Amino acid sequence: MTYKRIHNFNAGPAALPIEVLEEIKTDLIDYKGNGLSVLEMSHRSKAYDEIIKNAEKDMRELLGIPDNYTVMFLQGGATLQFAMVPLNLLPDNKPADYINTGTWSTKAIEEAQKLGKTPRVIASSEDKEFTYIPKNFTINKDSAYLHITSNNTIRGTEWQSFPETNGIDLVCDMSSDFCSRPVDVKKFALIYAGAQKNVGPAGATVVIIRNDLLERSPKNIPTMCNYKIMAKEPSLYNTPPAFTIYVIGLVMKYLKKIGGLEKMYEMNKAKAKILYDRLDKNDFYRGTVEKDSRSLMNIPFRLKNEQLEEKFLKEAKAAGMEGLKGHRSVGGVRASLYNAVPKESVQALVNFMDEFEKKNS
Amino acid sequence: MTYKRIHNFNAGPAALPIEVLEEIKTDLIDYKGNGLSVLEMSHRSKAYDEIIKNAEKDMRELLGIPDNYTVMFLQGGATLQFAMVPLNLLPDNKPADYINTGTWSTKAIEEAQKLGKTPRVIASSEDKEFTYIPKNFTINKDSAYLHITSNNTIRGTEWQSFPETNGIDLVCDMSSDFCSRPVDVKKFALIYAGAQKNVGPAGATVVIIRNDLLERSPKNIPTMCNYKIMAKEPSLYNTPPAFTIYVIGLVMKYLKKIGGLEKMYEMNKAKAKILYDRLDKNDFYRGTVEKDSRSLMNIPFRLKNEQLEEKFLKEAKAAGMEGLKGHRSVGGVRASLYNAVPKESVQALVNFMDEFEKKNS
Repeated sequence: MTYKRIHNFNAGPAALPIEVLEEIKTDLIDYKGNGLSVLEMSHRSKAYDEIIKNAEKDMRELLGIPDNYTVMFLQGGATLQFAMVPLNLLPDNKPADYINTGTWSTKAIEEAQKLGKTPRVIASSEDKEFTYIPKNFTINKDSAYLHITSNNTIRGTEWQSFPETNGIDLVCDMSSDFCSRPVDVKKFALIYAGAQKNVGPAGATVVIIRNDLLERSPKNIPTMCNYKIMAKEPSLYNTPPAFTIYVIGLVMKYLKKIGGLEKMYEMNKAKAKILYDRLDKNDFYRGTVEKDSRSLMNIPFRLKNEQLEEKFLKEAKAAGMEGLKGHRSVGGVRASLYNAVPKESVQALVNFMDEFEKKNS
Repeated sequence: MTYKRIHNFNAGPAALPIEVLEEIKTDLIDYKGNGLSVLEMSHRSKAYDEIIKNAEKDMRELLGIPDNYTVMFLQGGATLQFAMVPLNLLPDNKPADYINTGTWSTKAIEEAQKLGKTPRVIASSEDKEFTYIPKNFTINKDSAYLHITSNNTIRGTEWQSFPETNGIDLVCDMSSDFCSRPVDVKKFALIYAGAQKNVGPAGATVVIIRNDLLERSPKNIPTMCNYKIMAKEPSLYNTPPAFTIYVIGLVMKYLKKIGGLEKMYEMNKAKAKILYDRLDKNDFYRGTVEKDSRSLMNIPFRLKNEQLEEKFLKEAKAAGMEGLKGHRSVGGVRASLYNAVPKESVQALVNFMDEFEKKNS
């Protein structure tokens, strides 16, 4: 069966692979002969146990997560992690280093401050409107951890390689490029990621934590904010967001099928290149990010004649391209090319851009 | 099309109406001609805005929620509410009254204690293994609020009418009977409920709060735990559990279609009566709860000969009845008869019970 499908350039929640959607649809009312929907299943049932265990197993395999790390599917998005990280890992008498690369980093810093903690900004790209990833910074030896944001959805920057921390625990908000490329998990103490960009629908946050960190959780914080309690029976302290985890599992299976994260990375590089090449062709369109900090996931750009942007967005939408409006805090245009956005969509966008240029030059 | 459907007596996540599942399936890949799935939709899009606004509107209509209450779809389940209620509403120098009717009430009390607050247990049914709802208690005049649990999934008790509080704010964990009967919302200061029993899949918590309470939220608590921040743009401070909210909206529409909560209540009473009548017929089976505290949602019972219970459960499962095992903390049998469990399932259970009695007397 074929379906009407728009070109989905949403910044998140975002596109899912059509194969995954088709499998969900097939199994929706009677999950593999169990006589009920995953939406109705007890999280303690045998059928669901298999679903959640396989989701974790496949994620471990794809990312090469070492055995001394716990994988959890929590709730509350990255915003709750902004609080959980300092609540669990930052004692009141100790500072932690943060690098500020935009709105979401800023929020993480503000949340730690609000909770009476001492986040210390050791580098920031605010001087150039967050259009680059800082390169020169010194991590303090007394820091409880270094917090970074691997990809910045609003500004379109991405850490292309991760910093050496000389033994300081690296904590990374990977919400918007998680599973878009291979990462060396053992370089990180903690990785967290909202599911709704590359690995599933909204409603679950993946947390990958090195087990020794669990011992730092104090007792007097909310149970649902306590990594140690959440890790005891991972994802199952209380009723988890069961359906979202099921979809994440299907996405993991899909990623394995296409050849893993190396292959996904190649595909993402190829997709982004199509659009970046178009931006670099002449000055009708202009990428807003320094070249060595460009994101493969979110590509913001402006038209030379900014007066034309509204027209551009309106005509793009009419041509079946959804979600291209830049974030309200920066304006312009932004195309999000997450894992499940097909190359054909990027090609369609570039064709549209070429045509729009012709008509409006 | 017909599907294999078991009799779903799970304590939660639980059965959904087949009409709702069918609508989800129909719209799964291309939501009403929008060219994408609700699973892929931006929570800021026009299509999603309509979904979430209608879910709220229909819930307001069904429950008659007054205008001075905010309705929110949050994350973290009742367990996060156990913390949010005292964090937001209970200043450090003030006590709050709690009534202990079982495991979930106990957890709410322990969570408040853990956060350094002063919950005060003014009544408890622990003396008789939580098999009744306390009737004689005095609410303290200096209490910040009174916290109760309207229905106790594990023990099978339910408040059949709510206490008069003489001006003390009533906070109610309604997780397991929310929308199973009409309630007079204005009697409550705050109602919270995990969705996964009567109104949707796991992953969202409904919070209905009287607006003046929002002014009590202190600034130095995690953003995701702050009612005031969450209420500013209800459910949309960050990415909400969008698909779960969509399903809740469909369930609300379904409840309106069948005639609202009065009608649902009649249906639930009729269903529970079938099973309670069977339990009261002779002493082969025995309800474990005092009659005036019996729940319409969760009906625990024992066999006179407890040795037969394992056999009973095994044969029931083989006969297509899922989720009948009593909670591991109490044993025995428990049938959960939430809104979406059809009368036919209850009748099938009672028929099975009759036959089992015949064979094993």
